[in-house]
Amino acid sequence: MADNILGFDTVAIDEENRALVIIDQTKLPGRVEFLSLTKQEDIHRAIRSLQVRGAPAIGVAAAAGVYLAALGTDCADYDTFLAKFRESKEYLAASRPTAVNLFWALDRMERVVTDNSGADVAEIKRLLRLEALAIRGADRAVCRAIGEYALSLIRDGDGILTHCNAGQLAAVRYGTALAPIYIGLERGLRFRVYADETRPLLQGARLTCFELAALGVETTLICDGMASSVMQKGLVDAVFVGCDRVAANGDVCNKIGTSGAAIIARHYGVPFYVCAPTSTIDMSSGSGADIPIEERPPDEVTEMWYRERMAPEGIGVYNPAFDVTENGLVTAVITERGIARPPYSDTLRRIFSDSGAPVFL
Amino acid sequence: MADNILGFDTVAIDEENRALVIIDQTKLPGRVEFLSLTKQEDIHRAIRSLQVRGAPAIGVAAAAGVYLAALGTDCADYDTFLAKFRESKEYLAASRPTAVNLFWALDRMERVVTDNSGADVAEIKRLLRLEALAIRGADRAVCRAIGEYALSLIRDGDGILTHCNAGQLAAVRYGTALAPIYIGLERGLRFRVYADETRPLLQGARLTCFELAALGVETTLICDGMASSVMQKGLVDAVFVGCDRVAANGDVCNKIGTSGAAIIARHYGVPFYVCAPTSTIDMSSGSGADIPIEERPPDEVTEMWYRERMAPEGIGVYNPAFDVTENGLVTAVITERGIARPPYSDTLRRIFSDSGAPVFL
Repeated sequence: MADNILGFDTVAIDEENRALVIIDQTKLPGRVEFLSLTKQEDIHRAIRSLQVRGAPAIGVAAAAGVYLAALGTDCADYDTFLAKFRESKEYLAASRPTAVNLFWALDRMERVVTDNSGADVAEIKRLLRLEALAIRGADRAVCRAIGEYALSLIRDGDGILTHCNAGQLAAVRYGTALAPIYIGLERGLRFRVYADETRPLLQGARLTCFELAALGVETTLICDGMASSVMQKGLVDAVFVGCDRVAANGDVCNKIGTSGAAIIARHYGVPFYVCAPTSTIDMSSGSGADIPIEERPPDEVTEMWYRERMAPEGIGVYNPAFDVTENGLVTAVITERGIARPPYSDTLRRIFSDSGAPVFL
Repeated sequence: MADNILGFDTVAIDEENRALVIIDQTKLPGRVEFLSLTKQEDIHRAIRSLQVRGAPAIGVAAAAGVYLAALGTDCADYDTFLAKFRESKEYLAASRPTAVNLFWALDRMERVVTDNSGADVAEIKRLLRLEALAIRGADRAVCRAIGEYALSLIRDGDGILTHCNAGQLAAVRYGTALAPIYIGLERGLRFRVYADETRPLLQGARLTCFELAALGVETTLICDGMASSVMQKGLVDAVFVGCDRVAANGDVCNKIGTSGAAIIARHYGVPFYVCAPTSTIDMSSGSGADIPIEERPPDEVTEMWYRERMAPEGIGVYNPAFDVTENGLVTAVITERGIARPPYSDTLRRIFSDSGAPVFL
């Protein structure tokens, strides 16, 4: 399985069985197991427990989830249907708080229902199916576009440091931060990737290294605390990370440890790039301070992969899943619509207000 | 055991049984096991495998080791004794390359032999015993003095971030970076400590949290990548770390992850203090570039505490045990002779050239 990871999509909809099909990411890299989820409770749990994770993938999974739930409702009355739809939507929205794609995708789905209040329920279900497939299909195109823009910023042979997993496994295909590496690979370019292991849940060691090794990318795993050492040695030409939410001022909320990596990159003069589908940019969050940060259970830190306790009892544990990187540390935000540079309050707004042609800012 | 950790010394010499007695630090915090080591091979292995670790503790253990080896030699001829002594010394010196206390302690022991070439071997053994005990005894006094100076830099209630373990377990008693917290505790002062877990070997989670919890210090365990988050929230008033070697220009070699913490502290305007016995300052290393950095096996990173592989095969792993923090990031170097501030090439030299009175620089 590992050798053809780009041969299948991370998040797929099995229409015949009315199921969301995902790779169980908590089992990687040891086992490649697919899960076929038909109930919204299972999809909620899969998101919450990180069986499917990564902002773009979560959005696609949530859209599929709310569609499958709608498909299963058997009322013919619009108001009842809408009420049930909103119940599902709110239930799925409560699975995780930080990645905005979850809410963005669910809002897109809801608009299909509310914009068609005159249509009958069967027609709305048909439109919801199309919207879920459109969200999923667009993700691949968006990631490819981000990859092309990002690739324009690096050169063959460069050393790239990345944090957490913003690759194929975080999206449908290609990923965001790893997309330039995969597109470069198609063109015969080779990069050296330094993958932060990303404690506590090791998405870098388990997922990023899995993807990159499967494709033969030269990959070096480091602990999070080693980023300064590899940058000090001049081994890193650029940092690429994904993100869970970008505020209107360019503050970036991403996996815990990102802001430290950005500060260290700035210290060594290494550019720090954030790869963000526009669905990840939340113009209603003025700054990073407006973004809710999920805190997860202490045992993720104290127990080594739930096998053995590594810290004594009687201590506190702080386990935020994300942190905020100040906009001043971000060299550019790379979207499918172009590359935004500071001042972000201006350039991010232009990305949204533009008529549709790519913008290079 | 845990509740009286300060009731015994981390490194002790059992004269009756001609043994070095240590706590096996690889078993903490799960089990408190003492090891009684009589052979130099066992002492070498204990240092190499981190059963005893921390620059001051390694120095004391090596001094004891070379003394016990000398005690076991049965030649009466000085030249033969010296040759055997040097063989032991070189063997123990090869256990780890970075912490300079190892070489400092062994050099002190060797000088006892070479300065007394006229004495008979029995007398030299007697003097070696006194020197090993003096090195061990001085360590407690040195750590206490460092703790007093460090305590003068913080206030009751302050938040202190520390990396790795530079506490009681890294020395004979008190430790270096944690000494101000322990001495403060004796005086009724309370600090909030944030302990970096310190991947890959988790000395922060396993050892620092063990010590601090045993003494009732308010301790919060964080992953290394969370340091920026806690500093961004304003929870940290100072960073205290130990060190393995300080170069003459003030560059600091300490556990991997330290330089990143220093860069992040600088970004947030948090003072970054290095607690260093003068035995850790190596005036013969001009800068950090002159300090050899130990690289350790990849499986320390890829396998979660040797239970389960967390990274796929086919990737590289970079696992340096230490990094170098540039002198410009170090607010002060706190020694038993006083507090040195930049420019270190001047102030560190003054610490060594001073007649013996404490210096406050």
